[in-house]
Amino acid sequence: ASESEAQRALQYEQTLMYGRYTQDLGTFAKDEAARLRLQQGHGEGDIPRPRRPSELLEYTQGRCAACRVCTLQCQRFLISKVGEDWVFLILLGLVMALVSWAMDFAIATCLQAQKWMYGGLDTNVLLQYLAWVTYPTVLITFSAGFTQILAPQAVGSGIPEMKTILRGIVLKEYLTFKTFVAKVIGLTCALGSGMPLGKEGPFVHIASMCAALLSRFLSLFGGFYENEARNIEMLAAACAVGVGCCFAAPIGGVLFSIEVTSTFFAVRNYWRGFFAATFSAFIFRVLAVWNKDEETITALFKTRFRLDFPFDLQELPAFAVIGIASGFGGALFVYLNRKIVQFMRRQKTINRFLMKKRLLFPALVTLLISTLTFPPGFGQFMAGQLTQKDTLVTLFDNQTWAKQELSDEFEYLGILEAWRHPRSNVFVTLVVFILMKFWMSALATTIPVPCGAFMPVFVIGAAFGRLVGESMAAWFPDGIHTNSNTYRIVPGGYAVVGAAALSGAVTHTVSTAVIVFELTGQISHILPVMIAVILANAVAQSLQPSLYDSIIRIKKLPYLPELGWGHHEKYNMRVEDIMVRDIRYVTLNCKYRDLQHVLHSTKMKSLPLVESAESMILLGSIERTQVGALLSYQLSPQCRLQALRQKAQTEDRHRLSDASICFQISTEASSGALPHGTPRKPLKSALKRVPSSPVESPPAGTADHTGIALKNLFCANSAAEPTEAQGMAYRKAKHVRISIVEEMDLGDRMTPAEILEWEEQQLDQLVDFSSAKIDPAPFQLVEHTSLHKTHTIFSLLGLDHAYVTSIGRLVGMVSLKELRKAIEGSLTAKGVKVRPPLASFRDSTASASEPDTTALNQLWDRHQHHPMPREAGP
Amino acid sequence: ASESEAQRALQYEQTLMYGRYTQDLGTFAKDEAARLRLQQGHGEGDIPRPRRPSELLEYTQGRCAACRVCTLQCQRFLISKVGEDWVFLILLGLVMALVSWAMDFAIATCLQAQKWMYGGLDTNVLLQYLAWVTYPTVLITFSAGFTQILAPQAVGSGIPEMKTILRGIVLKEYLTFKTFVAKVIGLTCALGSGMPLGKEGPFVHIASMCAALLSRFLSLFGGFYENEARNIEMLAAACAVGVGCCFAAPIGGVLFSIEVTSTFFAVRNYWRGFFAATFSAFIFRVLAVWNKDEETITALFKTRFRLDFPFDLQELPAFAVIGIASGFGGALFVYLNRKIVQFMRRQKTINRFLMKKRLLFPALVTLLISTLTFPPGFGQFMAGQLTQKDTLVTLFDNQTWAKQELSDEFEYLGILEAWRHPRSNVFVTLVVFILMKFWMSALATTIPVPCGAFMPVFVIGAAFGRLVGESMAAWFPDGIHTNSNTYRIVPGGYAVVGAAALSGAVTHTVSTAVIVFELTGQISHILPVMIAVILANAVAQSLQPSLYDSIIRIKKLPYLPELGWGHHEKYNMRVEDIMVRDIRYVTLNCKYRDLQHVLHSTKMKSLPLVESAESMILLGSIERTQVGALLSYQLSPQCRLQALRQKAQTEDRHRLSDASICFQISTEASSGALPHGTPRKPLKSALKRVPSSPVESPPAGTADHTGIALKNLFCANSAAEPTEAQGMAYRKAKHVRISIVEEMDLGDRMTPAEILEWEEQQLDQLVDFSSAKIDPAPFQLVEHTSLHKTHTIFSLLGLDHAYVTSIGRLVGMVSLKELRKAIEGSLTAKGVKVRPPLASFRDSTASASEPDTTALNQLWDRHQHHPMPREAGP
Repeated sequence: ASESEAQRALQYEQTLMYGRYTQDLGTFAKDEAARLRLQQGHGEGDIPRPRRPSELLEYTQGRCAACRVCTLQCQRFLISKVGEDWVFLILLGLVMALVSWAMDFAIATCLQAQKWMYGGLDTNVLLQYLAWVTYPTVLITFSAGFTQILAPQAVGSGIPEMKTILRGIVLKEYLTFKTFVAKVIGLTCALGSGMPLGKEGPFVHIASMCAALLSRFLSLFGGFYENEARNIEMLAAACAVGVGCCFAAPIGGVLFSIEVTSTFFAVRNYWRGFFAATFSAFIFRVLAVWNKDEETITALFKTRFRLDFPFDLQELPAFAVIGIASGFGGALFVYLNRKIVQFMRRQKTINRFLMKKRLLFPALVTLLISTLTFPPGFGQFMAGQLTQKDTLVTLFDNQTWAKQELSDEFEYLGILEAWRHPRSNVFVTLVVFILMKFWMSALATTIPVPCGAFMPVFVIGAAFGRLVGESMAAWFPDGIHTNSNTYRIVPGGYAVVGAAALSGAVTHTVSTAVIVFELTGQISHILPVMIAVILANAVAQSLQPSLYDSIIRIKKLPYLPELGWGHHEKYNMRVEDIMVRDIRYVTLNCKYRDLQHVLHSTKMKSLPLVESAESMILLGSIERTQVGALLSYQLSPQCRLQALRQKAQTEDRHRLSDASICFQISTEASSGALPHGTPRKPLKSALKRVPSSPVESPPAGTADHTGIALKNLFCANSAAEPTEAQGMAYRKAKHVRISIVEEMDLGDRMTPAEILEWEEQQLDQLVDFSSAKIDPAPFQLVEHTSLHKTHTIFSLLGLDHAYVTSIGRLVGMVSLKELRKAIEGSLTAKGVKVRPPLASFRDSTASASEPDTTALNQLWDRHQHHPMPREAGP
Repeated sequence: ASESEAQRALQYEQTLMYGRYTQDLGTFAKDEAARLRLQQGHGEGDIPRPRRPSELLEYTQGRCAACRVCTLQCQRFLISKVGEDWVFLILLGLVMALVSWAMDFAIATCLQAQKWMYGGLDTNVLLQYLAWVTYPTVLITFSAGFTQILAPQAVGSGIPEMKTILRGIVLKEYLTFKTFVAKVIGLTCALGSGMPLGKEGPFVHIASMCAALLSRFLSLFGGFYENEARNIEMLAAACAVGVGCCFAAPIGGVLFSIEVTSTFFAVRNYWRGFFAATFSAFIFRVLAVWNKDEETITALFKTRFRLDFPFDLQELPAFAVIGIASGFGGALFVYLNRKIVQFMRRQKTINRFLMKKRLLFPALVTLLISTLTFPPGFGQFMAGQLTQKDTLVTLFDNQTWAKQELSDEFEYLGILEAWRHPRSNVFVTLVVFILMKFWMSALATTIPVPCGAFMPVFVIGAAFGRLVGESMAAWFPDGIHTNSNTYRIVPGGYAVVGAAALSGAVTHTVSTAVIVFELTGQISHILPVMIAVILANAVAQSLQPSLYDSIIRIKKLPYLPELGWGHHEKYNMRVEDIMVRDIRYVTLNCKYRDLQHVLHSTKMKSLPLVESAESMILLGSIERTQVGALLSYQLSPQCRLQALRQKAQTEDRHRLSDASICFQISTEASSGALPHGTPRKPLKSALKRVPSSPVESPPAGTADHTGIALKNLFCANSAAEPTEAQGMAYRKAKHVRISIVEEMDLGDRMTPAEILEWEEQQLDQLVDFSSAKIDPAPFQLVEHTSLHKTHTIFSLLGLDHAYVTSIGRLVGMVSLKELRKAIEGSLTAKGVKVRPPLASFRDSTASASEPDTTALNQLWDRHQHHPMPREAGP
């Protein structure tokens, strides 16, 4: 199942958000449209161009139409005054809040149904078990099947994909309506099953799809919704909305989405994100009030810890311990998750079987997990009957669970009951809960349904924090300070800290701290939370990539790893150490044969265009497809046709110069058909038919091209300059010849051997680049650019590759691949070993003079090998 | 006073953080060092190179030294293992927390002293008044004088300067130790005076200076602290620390510093900022606990609003009103502040007088403000006796001040007393407070002392919120919902919302919301705060620039305005509309005369280097200083010396070829002095003396240059190739000649007329660029690049200018100036009117086909005027 994911993930396409300086996509589209229109205009006359909706409306009859036109115009006026961005963001927030609320409602109903079924069958344990197990299995299987059929792109979290998309890479089918439907329905079913799955990641994806669809919808009303750069900005805001309306946490949502999806963040998008996320969270919570779930707008998991003395200074070591342990736990989770995926892939026999029965794996996993959580069975030791939400509510509870001196004073009430077991104590339950949920969550998130891992991890973290808190409370029953006013330890606070720390460790984010504050509605534990989150991050980041980066690697999405903390050798390494030196290029004066050779020898998506192989001055870059088009046009039947015509015409001329008798004959053979007064017209129409021949659609710009070739033809004739009479006769003869040629099937007139010979001739011609689209300013670096700066530029501009130049001369190329390898510390493409991670350590202890002189020698050598383009005399 | 500020502010220098691809500053420094060392090595033999401290230590005697070496090595090991970043950030956080705490302590002491003086003199109102007024006047005057003398750069907030520095522009003297001392002491005195001034902005500056100094200090222990890009990253973290330890608000600090100082933010810096700010805030609060000020770590201005029902849904309109009014208020504040500065500048007579007596203006303003706040005077109507901190504490108070039905039940206790006036009610006091403080703060922040405006604005906002809250409480005495359970309105919550909204409006930030949560320790009002802040921002951003941008404009710092919301025409405008077309350039085959001409005709800091005036292929860019150096070297006395030598030598050769008799003589004249076995050495030493002649310090790279010139000299000689004996004799003769020439004062040997003639000759030579540093990859754009994209690239990479190329050919240039003008909608340099702001509106209503065809025509025209560099034959 995961392998097919990987295959699917490879269907991406590079767009170079900022790297493509040639033309905006918009401009390109306009040019294309204009060209088409021009062709039409010259062609079959005035075909009425397609009108915009409002123009169409103006022509329809009736008062209703006039009214609608008025409304549309008002709307347009409003949009242009208020700002389209605002309208867009408000709509996005509104839609996402509604979706979130509706999904929550549906999920709650699903869970209620399961509880009701389970509760109703309490007479028979077997029936109860069957109900408990069948219900989630059916839901998960349906979810997996539904997504598989409708849009397999909807599987999984979505954050890794969004990270890739925001880097400027287009993933096919990831932002379509079909995927939207699949994700919403699939996610509702998956969460409704009660499996340990989350909704945060999918919500980011859903919000992005929503933004993309809304953008397309609003573009019907005109405006500039087609702009690509703007779409990226809106997607960034949408990610914030996704997190924001999932947890009703606008600030945390914005920050989380920034941390998870971006490397460099535009502060102006931050604003948009805040606006949309706040609006969305507001609507989301207002819906809850309107539905009478809540009395007023409050936090989702409101806590009621005391304000005046939230925690003691001496408790901080315990919080730090939570942070460090969470760091290890988070790294372990990521590792476990990846190992499960890799294990499933490697087991070929299992894999082949599962691939055939795609739905078997989800069903089996669900069966296993729900069996283990069956409340009368093993579930009783791990609070199995609680839903994720109830679990969180109980874990954040204000009371202390551990038995204290006055053991009977404290009553387990309501859902808290689940944590108490008559034959064991709370500590055992918590430990079992943490251990079981840990592997269950890691396993469950590999099921091919839309699901996230944030919430399960959050719950595990909360349980771990609670465990530490309860232990502390048992250890210091009267609080740590036993002098004057006793403040007891609040285990709920530890749960909050643990939840933030573990989720922060798994996702490598600090903003989980903010999410926790917004979720609980209390910020009193800010320092413990921050300390724990930072420690957890420090530990986890040094051990494993984040969960999302791990998925990106598993799915083989094109990514650029982050420069780690304190890896100073990145500052010392330079582009010249990692660049590829022998690159294929196209010269301005090359032949078509060279193009063919280059296309065969490299797989690069764009080729550098240099002035000549000697000077190597970089003029621009040309896309592979463009080169292919040039080549295929040169060898196309149209060209063959032209060549034939040219050949025929030369023959004609020969005949004309040899004897003027044959001229008489040939004229007579066609005089009836030719209108003598207008000798040019048939030629024209004959020529016109060439580009519209259905043999092969010509590449862009062929129309001009043919024109040039024919003009040359005429020029060649005028150069020959026969006498007046001869010229007239010659011209007529040519017409005849051409019209005859036209009527015949030209392709068949050449034998394959002839064609081969002709093609060889064609390949020996010089390339005409005038019709090819050339990017005149591809991104350039110099050999001295440090790896650190290169990384910065690549991630800032979303580059795919950059050329390395030395005073205009092309000397190498760096692509994402080389950069990735260099950062990961492996070998470069040239086999040069990149400095080991401890290089900086070595440098700082060794004497400082050595590297300097080496650098100097290099400089000298380079200077001698590559002198300036021209050196003035003394 | 402000004019001198503006003058000072213009002393900036462009470094092009990412734009300078040529070489890192570090690399450059290394190369320079290596070159110097090489010179030394070739020169007078082995001068021991300067050693690093630790190496020096190793040579010193005694156990203590060995111990110290060991310590240093341990330290180095630790640093390289743990990561220098961590050590740096921990140190930064620690130092800043200590500075912040110490300053707070000193300020509190100052304020206490004033209160004590005022309280002690309660027998005589006049004496009381004098004490009340003199104390702040003296402090402010001292602060102004001290900063003026020690470091005038310390004046003002510092955030505008930091924004400029983080954009990659070096402001001189802004990050030095002197400025640090001036800012810390000046700020302490200014805040100790009790004027409505803030400490947030200055703290950002102080933290940045601290980071810069710490960086320089740590670089003594080796490592990579010299890296420029890294320093920028550390400064970004330092800004976060500044805000964080000022308010003990790590999250808000990070976000505020991002919003205020960056356009594009690297997420990896975010991490650093969080770490350092949290650590700093933690230490800052721990110090308070340690000092027994607090029992445990809590918020600075802790509130105790009820958690279960923080606000009613129906109160939201009131919060929205606060937001919108704050938006207008914030814009008004920025406007007022700017107008005051401009008024003071424009009044020439006042200005001249004040310039003479620089300290008069601060003293007068302080006198005015403190007179008005004198508690027994007008101050009684505006709670004048309260310090800023006390004001905030009272405004965030949990109780309702407005008289309710049971009017006598509520007692004004302690500092709350200040808000009650026997002859007026709370509303009047609040209104007077808001109005008076508003203009006072706007005026006070123009005083040339280190001060910020955040805190005063925050207080005014809180007062305004309180006013609205009290009004609401008076209007709905039993809460809005009067059905079942009555929840009264909490006016303190309104104060929190107002504070966040007004400070957000003035600074154009959303993160004031987070700061407010961290300051009060409660997040229950998150939605009202967010709504108010966003509305306030929306209103303020559409009316005025932020306070910091306003100061940037006043100080004329180099800045790039933000692209506003919904200004869609930015997507339609292109580089070709705004670029400068006639630019001065340097060709590769130009003469020195051309260089001179170019230098006279333009003021650009760097010049494009093209292949030739016909091809215009851009090869790189060369700095103005480099061009100047080339030119001045060509006309320098050294060159004249060489020319003379060459001339003399040709004369010699003539003499040699004429007769070999004189050879005998000349050899004999010097044979005693010359060691025959080593004929080269004296020549070398003679040559070596040339660059070290004190006439004029040679430009960088002259050493090589001289070498090349001399090599050429040798080559020319070897080309002449006399016979063996002749050659020997010739060589000897030359030595003699040169040593003779050396001993004479060469400059005097030419008459001014000769010098002029010689210079003219020199100017006609072709330029030798081999010794000049050329940036081989200056940033390039193409004509089609949209303004939006250009803005993005400029702010992403911190560019100063970019060349516009068309397939390698230089066609224009865009600098910050043009971009700024284009964004501000004024005329471009070429007089082409940029599209008016409503262009996009016009476009969307007009028929869509027209612009397309125009674009097409343009494309055609351009295509015809600029054909491809070379067109292949048919």
